[in-house]
Amino acid sequence: VTSALRVTEIGEFGLIHRLTASLFHNAATAPIGVGDDAAVLEYNEGEQMVATTDALVEGVHFLCATTSFFDLGYKSVAVSMSDVAAMGAVPRHVLITLCIPNDAIVEDLEQLYRGIDAICRKYDAVVVGGDVARADQLVINVTVLGAVKRGRALLRSGARSGDLVFVTGALGGSAAGLHLLEHDGSVVVMPDERQRLLTMHLLPQPQVQAGQLLAASQLCTSCNDVSDGLASELTEICEASKCSIVVDRERIPIDSHVRNYAARCKCDPVEWALFGGEDYQLVGSVDRMGAGRLDAQMQASGIPFHWIGHVDAPTADGPAVWLSERGARRKLTAHGYNHFRVQGDSGLQSNENRSDQASRDGWRC
Amino acid sequence: VTSALRVTEIGEFGLIHRLTASLFHNAATAPIGVGDDAAVLEYNEGEQMVATTDALVEGVHFLCATTSFFDLGYKSVAVSMSDVAAMGAVPRHVLITLCIPNDAIVEDLEQLYRGIDAICRKYDAVVVGGDVARADQLVINVTVLGAVKRGRALLRSGARSGDLVFVTGALGGSAAGLHLLEHDGSVVVMPDERQRLLTMHLLPQPQVQAGQLLAASQLCTSCNDVSDGLASELTEICEASKCSIVVDRERIPIDSHVRNYAARCKCDPVEWALFGGEDYQLVGSVDRMGAGRLDAQMQASGIPFHWIGHVDAPTADGPAVWLSERGARRKLTAHGYNHFRVQGDSGLQSNENRSDQASRDGWRC
Repeated sequence: VTSALRVTEIGEFGLIHRLTASLFHNAATAPIGVGDDAAVLEYNEGEQMVATTDALVEGVHFLCATTSFFDLGYKSVAVSMSDVAAMGAVPRHVLITLCIPNDAIVEDLEQLYRGIDAICRKYDAVVVGGDVARADQLVINVTVLGAVKRGRALLRSGARSGDLVFVTGALGGSAAGLHLLEHDGSVVVMPDERQRLLTMHLLPQPQVQAGQLLAASQLCTSCNDVSDGLASELTEICEASKCSIVVDRERIPIDSHVRNYAARCKCDPVEWALFGGEDYQLVGSVDRMGAGRLDAQMQASGIPFHWIGHVDAPTADGPAVWLSERGARRKLTAHGYNHFRVQGDSGLQSNENRSDQASRDGWRC
Repeated sequence: VTSALRVTEIGEFGLIHRLTASLFHNAATAPIGVGDDAAVLEYNEGEQMVATTDALVEGVHFLCATTSFFDLGYKSVAVSMSDVAAMGAVPRHVLITLCIPNDAIVEDLEQLYRGIDAICRKYDAVVVGGDVARADQLVINVTVLGAVKRGRALLRSGARSGDLVFVTGALGGSAAGLHLLEHDGSVVVMPDERQRLLTMHLLPQPQVQAGQLLAASQLCTSCNDVSDGLASELTEICEASKCSIVVDRERIPIDSHVRNYAARCKCDPVEWALFGGEDYQLVGSVDRMGAGRLDAQMQASGIPFHWIGHVDAPTADGPAVWLSERGARRKLTAHGYNHFRVQGDSGLQSNENRSDQASRDGWRC
């Protein structure tokens, strides 16, 4: 008898591949199924529906000691809304499953729901259903449904050599906030700086308006939300689009508070941007010929928009993300967070701390 | 400082009410939100969308020792598809969240997905997305999306005095299978009987075809699926419709294997039907004038269809479900399974065993 294969031996992405490879497909009702930020579904002639689901697990994605229940509710919806935003769609409906321990406090759950309601009101989405079940651990599963004009959904698969690569806002802020939570007291921070860093980690904003403008422009050739770090998101685009991407290190936007904080605790904020994740900005590619036009539209709408690199043909060994700095290129084989990291594979070339941390407590969204 | 209110002090239904009472609403895009089997949503002029989500939690809804992973996958989708069926809708798309322990075995999860795929193929639905996360306990959350012709969704709220009450098939089978699992070896059962009882518990079938026929008939005034037991489902209809319901004890359909098994272990199969739950048949009301026509349609389609009672005006103390037997009436205040049973409230007037069991291990879907 051979010993059973464990999920830790094949990792999160290996597991997903094995589970979904032979599933029933129906391109007529689900043109885009498993494998992008959200599925694209047919319910309407004019619009397509977008659907996505994500869970946050206590002790894995968050610690009750370091988040308020309001923020937790807000973030649990933000994470799934961000996937809808990354498709260029408008979020409309939300379904919530709460798995809660027997000793849960009602007021905490009411606060959680106030956070859920706050983000739903902000983005004009409605909680339309849910389920409540008992469990040992608090688990919040959020499904978000939305709509996008037919044929306009932003996929990961359309990047072409020559396209320019954008990001909709500063990166690394969530990782900085997480670092502060984990090292509280060991680094001097001013109250306003502390608040700003924690907010970036605890109350991320889905880039719904940016996604809609990108979809309406018809200039965006690929898009992804930064949930697992820039390196991981761009790798997904490269794999789906069969291309390579070169990112200019100096062009990666970093918030000045994040830069200052990183300097004080001797961390590299660009590593946070590349491998930290949970910034929930949008990243993707744009046809070079339309880049100026799109840039002007974004400026006019007050949406931060940064060009950080370009799309290249795949190299001999396939799609890859390269980090360019003063003429030199470094290949980013890095992945972001992996729920079942393959043993012996840190997944991070240049960020041993993150790997250590993931195995130590691994609580991130 | 007053001590914090725990969920066990207000129960599952009290909690849901408190969490959802003040949520943002939008009747234009979600005419039916929280409070029915599934939400009814606007994405299309001709059809309405239906959406529902449900979680199964290891140790609460199932034990890995008594279910195969294939059956667990099948049932996890059946539970949510049943809510879609109870709206008269066709299930189309499925999203799966798996929360899995680090030591999970890949082959087990592949079997789980084979069960998911089997039921999706059977009902022509497609798995279009999901999420995988690490957790201490196995949790499977399933969202099912479907469609129903505009205005035809079967709600809980339309039952009127004089309507007849139906159920689409035999009840109590799932509770019998659960009883067998819990008392295995202590009651003599033949292999085929054992298989039949276990199948009723482990592999329930959502009544998708029945739901569609009921919706198409335009004769069905209310509908619910039997997830928590007949008493609980009819209570929900009474509360939503502001009516009372009288059920004739002798008319409640019980499978002959269930009846035989119950006799041998000195249980009352009608109590299983009333309080057991998880049979996933449809129960509801029909305009008396159309009852004969609907009956004939069901017969012609080969769908079991039983008349079990009628709708009455609410009594002085409000909506209520009555069990009628040889002219005498007993009020059923019973509820089915409650994830956070209020302390001191068994919820079951005449079935102490089920209450004991729920507090002992409480594993049911």
